[in-house]
Amino acid sequence: MATTKLDPQAALAELQESKPQRVTLVVLSGDMDRVMAAFIIATGAASMGMQVTMFFTFWGLNAIRREGAKGTAKDWLRRMFGHLNKGGADSLPLSRFHFWGLGTRMMKLVMKQNRMPGIAELRAMALDLGVRFIACTTTLGLMGITKDTLIDEIDQFAGVSTYLAEAKDAQVNLFI
Amino acid sequence: MATTKLDPQAALAELQESKPQRVTLVVLSGDMDRVMAAFIIATGAASMGMQVTMFFTFWGLNAIRREGAKGTAKDWLRRMFGHLNKGGADSLPLSRFHFWGLGTRMMKLVMKQNRMPGIAELRAMALDLGVRFIACTTTLGLMGITKDTLIDEIDQFAGVSTYLAEAKDAQVNLFI
Amino acid sequence: MATTKLDPQAALAELQESKPQRVTLVVLSGDMDRVMAAFIIATGAASMGMQVTMFFTFWGLNAIRREGAKGTAKDWLRRMFGHLNKGGADSLPLSRFHFWGLGTRMMKLVMKQNRMPGIAELRAMALDLGVRFIACTTTLGLMGITKDTLIDEIDQFAGVSTYLAEAKDAQVNLFI
Repeated sequence: MATTKLDPQAALAELQESKPQRVTLVVLSGDMDRVMAAFIIATGAASMGMQVTMFFTFWGLNAIRREGAKGTAKDWLRRMFGHLNKGGADSLPLSRFHFWGLGTRMMKLVMKQNRMPGIAELRAMALDLGVRFIACTTTLGLMGITKDTLIDEIDQFAGVSTYLAEAKDAQVNLFI
Repeated sequence: MATTKLDPQAALAELQESKPQRVTLVVLSGDMDRVMAAFIIATGAASMGMQVTMFFTFWGLNAIRREGAKGTAKDWLRRMFGHLNKGGADSLPLSRFHFWGLGTRMMKLVMKQNRMPGIAELRAMALDLGVRFIACTTTLGLMGITKDTLIDEIDQFAGVSTYLAEAKDAQVNLFI
Repeated sequence: MATTKLDPQAALAELQESKPQRVTLVVLSGDMDRVMAAFIIATGAASMGMQVTMFFTFWGLNAIRREGAKGTAKDWLRRMFGHLNKGGADSLPLSRFHFWGLGTRMMKLVMKQNRMPGIAELRAMALDLGVRFIACTTTLGLMGITKDTLIDEIDQFAGVSTYLAEAKDAQVNLFI
C-alpha cells in the first residue's frame, strides 16, 4: 500500500506541467511605457507557450484603435471626449516626460536606433503569437470610442465576468 | 492497484472546485478610473461567489473617505497635506484629462447618461455583496487622513502582513 | 483500498505548506509612493519567509540607481533623456501633489516625524532580507541609464522570459 502515499512535491510538479500555463493582463493604462510593457510580457509569455489574454479597458482601449480612425459618436459630449482622447498605437504618451510630445518622440527615436519594435509592431507580434484581445464593453462608451474605430483583430467584446473567469485559472494576472 | 494512479488534470479540477475562489485588490491609486475599475472587479467577483478583499493604501484611502469629512490632524503639516488631498468617493480625479475638474465632470455626465453607477454606488454594492475593506494603517498617518473621516464600513485596520496572508491563498491578486 | 481516495482539501493544504511561497513584483513606476509600496510588500513578504523577486523596468530602474551617479551615455539623445530622468532612491517624485518637489518634501518630512524608513532604508532592508533584484536589460538603454550608475547589489540583468519563469510559479504577482 506504500504506493498510495502521495508525494506532494512530485504531484504538484506533475500537476503544473500537465496544466497549460495562462497569463491575463488588464490594460487600463494608455501610457506608452505601460502599454509597451504589457505587449512585451504578452509576446514573451506567448512565445514561451503560455496562453495569454489581454483585456483592454479605459485608456488601454487606445492601444487597440486603428491609426487615424475618427470617432463616430453621435452626441457632442462623447465626440468631445473622443477628440481629446485621440488614440492609435502610435499616439500614446509617456507616463512621464511626455512634454507635449517631445519626450515621447525622443524615446521613440531611441527605440528606433536600438532597432526595438514600437507598439504597433509589438501588437502585431502578439496577434501572430495567438494572444487573445478582449475589449471592455463597459468602458468603450464611456471613453467615446466606437467599435468601428478599433482594429479588426478583437477576439471578443466582453465585461468583467469574462475577465474573472479567465483570471481565476491563470498563474499570472497583472493589472497594468 | 490501478486506482492509486492519480490523474493530475482531474485532481486539479477537483481541487479547484472544492477550494473557495479568492480575489485581493491593493488600491493604491486615487484616480477615478482606476478606483472604478477596482470596484467593478470587486463587485463582479463577489457576485460570482468569490471572496474579495480590498486593501486601500496611499491615495486609494480617498476612496473610502466620507464625503465632506474634514481632516482633524493636529499638526499643520498633516493638516496641509490633508487639505490638498481632499477625499470622498465623488472627488476623485481622472488619471488623464482631469483638466482642473472639467474632464472628470464630463466623464461623470457620460456615466449618468449611460445609467452607470458612480464610485459611491459601486462601493455600496461592494459592501452589500460582502467585499471586505481593509485600510492600511501604515499610510493613513502619512496621507494626513484620520480614522474619523473614513466611512464606517471598514472591516479592519491593518498592515502589509495581513494583506500578504490573504494574497498568498488567492487566485487573483491585483495592484491597482 | 479506501486509503487510495485522495481528500482534495487536505492534499491542497499539504501541497501549499510543502511549497515555498513566492512573490514577484514588476516595478515599472518611478513614483515615490508606488516604489515605497513595492518595497514595503517586498520586505513584508521576505520577513514572513517568502521568496521575493523584484523586477525593475522603465522608471522603476530609478529606484536602484546610486544617489548622485551621473549617466555616461555616449550619444546626446540618451544623455539628454538621462539628464531629465535623474534617479536615485531619494529623488523619486510623488505620483500626485509633487508640486515641483514641495509636496514630495512634505511627505518625506511626515515620514521622518513618524520615524518611517525612506526608500533607501527600505531598499537596504529588502537586500538584507534576501530579496532578489533583477534589472530589465531591454529598458535600461531606453531610459538612458548605464549599468555603472546602478547600485552594486543587482542580482541579475535579464529580460521578460526570466521574469515569467519566476512569476508562473509564484503565488503573488504584482505589477506596480
